[in-house]
Amino acid sequence: MNAITSLPSDAATQLPHPYLLFLGDTAEPGFAKTAFGVRDWAADKCVGEFSVGATVTTGLPVMTPEEAYAAGARAVLIGVANQGGLIAPSWIASFIEALEAGLDVISGLHNRLVDVPELAATAERLGRRLIDIRVPPAGLPVGSGRKRTGKRLLAVGTDCALGKKYTALALAAAFAERGVDVNFRATGQTGIMIAGGGIPMDAVVSDFEAGAAEVLSPDAAADHWDVIEGQGSLFHPAYAAVSLGLLHGSQPDVIVVCHQPGRETMLGLPDYAVPSIEETIELNLRMGRRTNPAIRCGGIAFNTSGMDAAEAEALMEAESKRLGLPVADPIRRGRAFEALVDSCLK
Amino acid sequence: MNAITSLPSDAATQLPHPYLLFLGDTAEPGFAKTAFGVRDWAADKCVGEFSVGATVTTGLPVMTPEEAYAAGARAVLIGVANQGGLIAPSWIASFIEALEAGLDVISGLHNRLVDVPELAATAERLGRRLIDIRVPPAGLPVGSGRKRTGKRLLAVGTDCALGKKYTALALAAAFAERGVDVNFRATGQTGIMIAGGGIPMDAVVSDFEAGAAEVLSPDAAADHWDVIEGQGSLFHPAYAAVSLGLLHGSQPDVIVVCHQPGRETMLGLPDYAVPSIEETIELNLRMGRRTNPAIRCGGIAFNTSGMDAAEAEALMEAESKRLGLPVADPIRRGRAFEALVDSCLK
Repeated sequence: MNAITSLPSDAATQLPHPYLLFLGDTAEPGFAKTAFGVRDWAADKCVGEFSVGATVTTGLPVMTPEEAYAAGARAVLIGVANQGGLIAPSWIASFIEALEAGLDVISGLHNRLVDVPELAATAERLGRRLIDIRVPPAGLPVGSGRKRTGKRLLAVGTDCALGKKYTALALAAAFAERGVDVNFRATGQTGIMIAGGGIPMDAVVSDFEAGAAEVLSPDAAADHWDVIEGQGSLFHPAYAAVSLGLLHGSQPDVIVVCHQPGRETMLGLPDYAVPSIEETIELNLRMGRRTNPAIRCGGIAFNTSGMDAAEAEALMEAESKRLGLPVADPIRRGRAFEALVDSCLK
Repeated sequence: MNAITSLPSDAATQLPHPYLLFLGDTAEPGFAKTAFGVRDWAADKCVGEFSVGATVTTGLPVMTPEEAYAAGARAVLIGVANQGGLIAPSWIASFIEALEAGLDVISGLHNRLVDVPELAATAERLGRRLIDIRVPPAGLPVGSGRKRTGKRLLAVGTDCALGKKYTALALAAAFAERGVDVNFRATGQTGIMIAGGGIPMDAVVSDFEAGAAEVLSPDAAADHWDVIEGQGSLFHPAYAAVSLGLLHGSQPDVIVVCHQPGRETMLGLPDYAVPSIEETIELNLRMGRRTNPAIRCGGIAFNTSGMDAAEAEALMEAESKRLGLPVADPIRRGRAFEALVDSCLK
């Protein structure tokens, strides 16, 4: 998927690659989600894996940092998160070994690499970089509202954590397969590792939120598409500010609404109902119209991971009829997904 | 206006006071807006003024830092902004004099006091504080969406910079005059200086925007009112993220819409029309309902500073009839303003 390239050098975080994926000491595949995501979506950016006794594997060749450097790697990427999302003390020696071997270190964890004294000292001595993806780039501007050239698609959602990143990646890949000139634009940690660049939108100071989204998808050729990873939901009582700044600054021509059938209350907020799909479409179009009057909804992406194939297909067909829009699960693909891609590009 | 007190110590920035107002070397009253605002709205927090050759005056007694400390002052407050909003090198000696005299220094300017080496060294040597109001407090939580006790009013707007702070201050003062237990909750630099505390909402990381607003107006007695200074506008292509986080986290029972008649395009954005008052009411109520289903609009605050009294009164009467809501200019006061206060409290 080489059409999903990194950002121009004047915008957003830029990551050195290819990566050597670090798996820590994990025995739990759920903790290695980042490594699996990067392997699946950015295979051309990965040369191998290493760990300090992990029993989980990505299936990539096991390499020492020295071997990885010789194979072209330029950074170790921490592909694992333990409970709490912190850098474990038992990992530090591996990162020092990597720095000594010529690799930078990339982390999306909560505490910062640069705040670990041994790492900071080693990186400084060797002229290596410690890259904390959760730290947004400096100098982001206030939004201008100026209409940019090129086409944009934004994945939005009825809630958090229901497949916006996966949907955007799948749509960008499908666009590329059809010969469309496309960039995936990442707005969260794993997305940034996959894309090799991006802006962690939830870490941006709110005054610059829309401005950061403007920087993330700059002027482009008239037939170029940016497919932008969404964040949160306009209906989320904690994160709607992130979602609205991203919507205004992205100026999408097309939104795709991501939804998980059967989820009735917002993740972790049992007192808050998940909004209806229609309401989510309508509010996103209404607010998105402020910076792009031509905004439209291309269709719906369902996360049907909890359903069997026949049940999922029947539901998506019924919902598509009811809403008058394509409804597809980007993981199941098939005809419905192709119809969604058609609708977005039309 | 002693009902407008500072925040509880576990929430938001807390400022030492009374203040000695610093006017720099300004000859332009417009640059001393902050000093005038603090003098007008927090007279009980001000003991005097000093400068390095300013020709502008607040009318307060001129004092040296030493005299001010003896008169009870505990901080110098920079009440002046030059072009660019930076700390001028010619001011530094005055701040060192103030630190030596026992005063802390408070700034709302863009560059930080703590980044001026002479100030940082002097403050550290003497155990004084350098307080940069634009830096939000550490440890702000993610929003919980939990309904809090007590009553809240939020000033919202059709645009930026049209009187939301003034409206909130005037309403809080009017509530207090009627014997209502009320706090003014500040969300911007000057408001924070007036209140003696608050959170600079535009400087908060967007993931914590709603959470910061929740911290700003904590649980209170059932008949207590927090009157919250608004920021930006849901229709502003750069700042709507700030406005939405503040709306969701504030959970207002009442909004008052601030508007400047005659302003046709958004400040500094000639391609963006100012939304109608009706649309502003409707969108704020719709989105505010997410965290407080009982939200209602108390009325409209007009900034009629460009109009003569008869013209302003006629317009406000006509608009009040058209909208079916009180419309008043909080600077002109009078019967219309009392009607607005009635409507908010009813």
